[in-house]
Amino acid sequence: MLKSPLQIARSSYQPKLPVALKGNVVLKEGEATQSVADHEEIKALFPNTYGMPILSMVKGEKKPMEPMNVGVILSGGQAPGGHNVISGLYDGLKNLNPQNKLYGFLGGPSGLIEHKYVELTGDIINEYRNTGGFDIIGSGRTKLEEPWQFDKGIEICHELGIRAIVIIGGDDSNTNACVLAEYYLQKGCGIQVIGCPKTIDGDLKNSQIETSFGFDTACKTYSELIGNIQRDANSAKKYWHFIRLMGRSASHIALECALQSQPNICLISEEVEAKNMTLNDIVDGIIKVIVARADAGLNFGTILIPEGLIEFIPAMRRLIAELNDLLATNEGFNALETEDEKRQFVKACLSPESSALFRDLPKGIARQLMLDRDPHGNVQVSQIETEKLLIEMVAKRLAVMKASGTYKGKFSALGHFFGYEGRCAIPSNFDADYCYSIGITATWLIAGGKSGYMALVQNLTAPASEWQAGGVPITMMMNMEKRAGKMKPVIQKALVDLEGAPFKYLAAHRDEWADANTSYIYPGPIQYYGPSEVCDQPTHTLKLEKGAFED
Amino acid sequence: MLKSPLQIARSSYQPKLPVALKGNVVLKEGEATQSVADHEEIKALFPNTYGMPILSMVKGEKKPMEPMNVGVILSGGQAPGGHNVISGLYDGLKNLNPQNKLYGFLGGPSGLIEHKYVELTGDIINEYRNTGGFDIIGSGRTKLEEPWQFDKGIEICHELGIRAIVIIGGDDSNTNACVLAEYYLQKGCGIQVIGCPKTIDGDLKNSQIETSFGFDTACKTYSELIGNIQRDANSAKKYWHFIRLMGRSASHIALECALQSQPNICLISEEVEAKNMTLNDIVDGIIKVIVARADAGLNFGTILIPEGLIEFIPAMRRLIAELNDLLATNEGFNALETEDEKRQFVKACLSPESSALFRDLPKGIARQLMLDRDPHGNVQVSQIETEKLLIEMVAKRLAVMKASGTYKGKFSALGHFFGYEGRCAIPSNFDADYCYSIGITATWLIAGGKSGYMALVQNLTAPASEWQAGGVPITMMMNMEKRAGKMKPVIQKALVDLEGAPFKYLAAHRDEWADANTSYIYPGPIQYYGPSEVCDQPTHTLKLEKGAFED
Repeated sequence: MLKSPLQIARSSYQPKLPVALKGNVVLKEGEATQSVADHEEIKALFPNTYGMPILSMVKGEKKPMEPMNVGVILSGGQAPGGHNVISGLYDGLKNLNPQNKLYGFLGGPSGLIEHKYVELTGDIINEYRNTGGFDIIGSGRTKLEEPWQFDKGIEICHELGIRAIVIIGGDDSNTNACVLAEYYLQKGCGIQVIGCPKTIDGDLKNSQIETSFGFDTACKTYSELIGNIQRDANSAKKYWHFIRLMGRSASHIALECALQSQPNICLISEEVEAKNMTLNDIVDGIIKVIVARADAGLNFGTILIPEGLIEFIPAMRRLIAELNDLLATNEGFNALETEDEKRQFVKACLSPESSALFRDLPKGIARQLMLDRDPHGNVQVSQIETEKLLIEMVAKRLAVMKASGTYKGKFSALGHFFGYEGRCAIPSNFDADYCYSIGITATWLIAGGKSGYMALVQNLTAPASEWQAGGVPITMMMNMEKRAGKMKPVIQKALVDLEGAPFKYLAAHRDEWADANTSYIYPGPIQYYGPSEVCDQPTHTLKLEKGAFED
Repeated sequence: MLKSPLQIARSSYQPKLPVALKGNVVLKEGEATQSVADHEEIKALFPNTYGMPILSMVKGEKKPMEPMNVGVILSGGQAPGGHNVISGLYDGLKNLNPQNKLYGFLGGPSGLIEHKYVELTGDIINEYRNTGGFDIIGSGRTKLEEPWQFDKGIEICHELGIRAIVIIGGDDSNTNACVLAEYYLQKGCGIQVIGCPKTIDGDLKNSQIETSFGFDTACKTYSELIGNIQRDANSAKKYWHFIRLMGRSASHIALECALQSQPNICLISEEVEAKNMTLNDIVDGIIKVIVARADAGLNFGTILIPEGLIEFIPAMRRLIAELNDLLATNEGFNALETEDEKRQFVKACLSPESSALFRDLPKGIARQLMLDRDPHGNVQVSQIETEKLLIEMVAKRLAVMKASGTYKGKFSALGHFFGYEGRCAIPSNFDADYCYSIGITATWLIAGGKSGYMALVQNLTAPASEWQAGGVPITMMMNMEKRAGKMKPVIQKALVDLEGAPFKYLAAHRDEWADANTSYIYPGPIQYYGPSEVCDQPTHTLKLEKGAFED
């Protein structure tokens, strides 16, 4: 067997397209833009790509176009819909002129530098329409930052007659896309660069970009699983499920999944940081809910935990920073033989606050912080199984409370981590439509001679036919931030806004979700067929942000 | 918000029903039956329920029926479709006579003993149609085995005017249902007992029962996730994913998921046992595939691991048995203070073979076997994270091979465990239809005055309209087996048949799946709407067993 029935059926799905992108398009210039902050610095760094106008797309007449070739790159982690950006790009190019060619650089940005590519023909494209994954050309994490890399890009583009490069990536990749665009404009080499907003993490969004693609499908896949686990919890009535969700920097995924499934607890890293909470504060909050539910005879529940939580706890961040400073190159430490000696050494060297925190951590976690280090000697925070850390701390505390008679329930817990299950799911109709439109939009930006722009599709809570397309200067999203000790221009990451509607909805309902016999919602698996209210809905986050959420 | 759009849409799904179950039904008796083995012993134990004929259902005329009340029990682990058995039962009863009542015993068999119940009214039933979970009345693992329990059952049935009890459960629960049926017949108390075949594990099947309900939905949910992970593996090209799947005794789930997704490796416990393989043999097999793929430049892949694997490795089973004998009540061992002393003690006391195996195990696993013990002092085999055990052993071996130059690849591995994600999924159309038919069938068995039967729906690879309904005497599936040192009559568990078509298909294709650049299939999430070939298919296992599989 070669394909599943759904794979076969999805290959003939025709993504829904905004009216504005059907037929021919002309670009309409809006007002000039400026960066979100640090105007002068950004302007100085991007003399050719700063201050460009926002572009919108309206219907226009067909104009004859010279043939052109375009290159495309997938950058960073997988997100559902990447293949549809590429198929939209392909269809858009062929629609402009059947002689146009699309090249895919292989294995991410390194394909451009190392001149590894494939021509994406119709046969190849058709194999990948509406599919998940980035396997059509592969992806990679090489960063395009150095002029020699940019120059290697010029070589291959000139060799293949490539007029524009489309980079599909997250905030960092799009920052680099803009640096590349600026460099090519300064050099006058005639190569345009266009970015496309990708990331399941949902942290690439701003006044213009309503959402990054892949966030919708990934969150719906995780929510399916959370809902199934909640139904199990409510049937078996004997387990607390601690569910860690991918997404290291922002908690958008956990928040969206909570909105879709209404768990008993959802931790939000940004809130933990804003309230300067400690690990003990977090455990306190969990204990409070567990005890209240146990008093009501409910010895089960669900807790969503964002992957990045640990790094948002200010005291933990200080401890990790001290450990990194202390241990990276400490020969005294490395010379010690037993784990116990090492532990004593560490405790003695840390600041009093960090030493106390270190002492209170479960042994396994302390061992991991102390011993599991990356090649630079740094703590491998992403390896920490936060769900197990919390289970252990909660269980310990409950055992003490049980002994003293302040807790009378039973506590059995199971840990889960969901990440790889959703990054390559078959894109939802929303992501399939959105990504295809992004690809078509990118084509028109290229045809219009634009560079340093991100393809823009807006009005996403309306039916796809009413979506608006255009382009936003990447410099408009930038500010200056410290990276590895140096100030750099970067696209501002969107963390969860504690004043925003999605978080406020959670905050307004979480007490009710914590206590209720069950407020659980069971979203079920993504549907591609059937009633539109079942299979074409955007995320709750997006609806709440746009005021389009109906309770 | 109270429900997801899919929950709302599914509530109005009308399960497809076999022609034979539309309208009125009469029971047709087939030939007398006998047990699969141990005829005399089973016959002696079940004088009233042994040798009864197989029943089939054909269209008949409407006969007036006296009102009757029925009780239903959910027993054991959750399986998608349980709510539909109950709604089928409800609709069937109300169709016979609107005055009929259905009572649900709460929290599993203990509800019968403790007289905890609820009347299942139309309002309640309508809330649960086509939903996952067992939360309508809850489930539990109390075993109905003792006469005093049976007598408590009589009390409440007489109080509520209950004429029949329907027990929805796995092999053990159905065995107990038959014991109960026999007891009630011997007592002449006028209470019938009917069983229904439930378990996601797929090990309750035989010449009559084609599949247990829930297996279809659970396997499709796990296969969705496996497919998504495979697409990720093939996009990122840098991880080996070791995926453990629920199902302790039989490997049907792993096998079905392999047929649906075509991973690089799928371990089958029954084969490991039949070939008397050791843990090292298994690691050898995995290493062979990893090295071959690395030589072809493919440093990624997927491995499916049945949860029960450890207990099917004969040498491991001997080690565990020795540890249980050795440590359960060993005061000398318990008095030892350090882990190292305990380890030395254990090594010295084990047989030479087990001692060598114990020494070779990764430390964390050896520690778990030695220290994590249940209240009876037994090793907690189900707590062992087999995927991590295998990752550790494989990594260690590859490191040695790399040092000696016989392996040149890169090995990074990630572990997953899927179980709770699928047990309460929204039932597939297949399970929704199958379970509803089982419920209706059970009603007709009750109306026909039968007891000790299991509701039977067959011909499941045909469209639902062509399914056949009937009843099979539970004694027909029984043989005598040793349980806790005593010979007991039990329903024979169906392990994976190494001569059966599903395993043979795997065996014939696995080398190709192991080596190929990618043979991965991406099943995607369960679809409830859309083309019939996408949303109404039974499992590959069932199709292969019935000769209805098209490659």
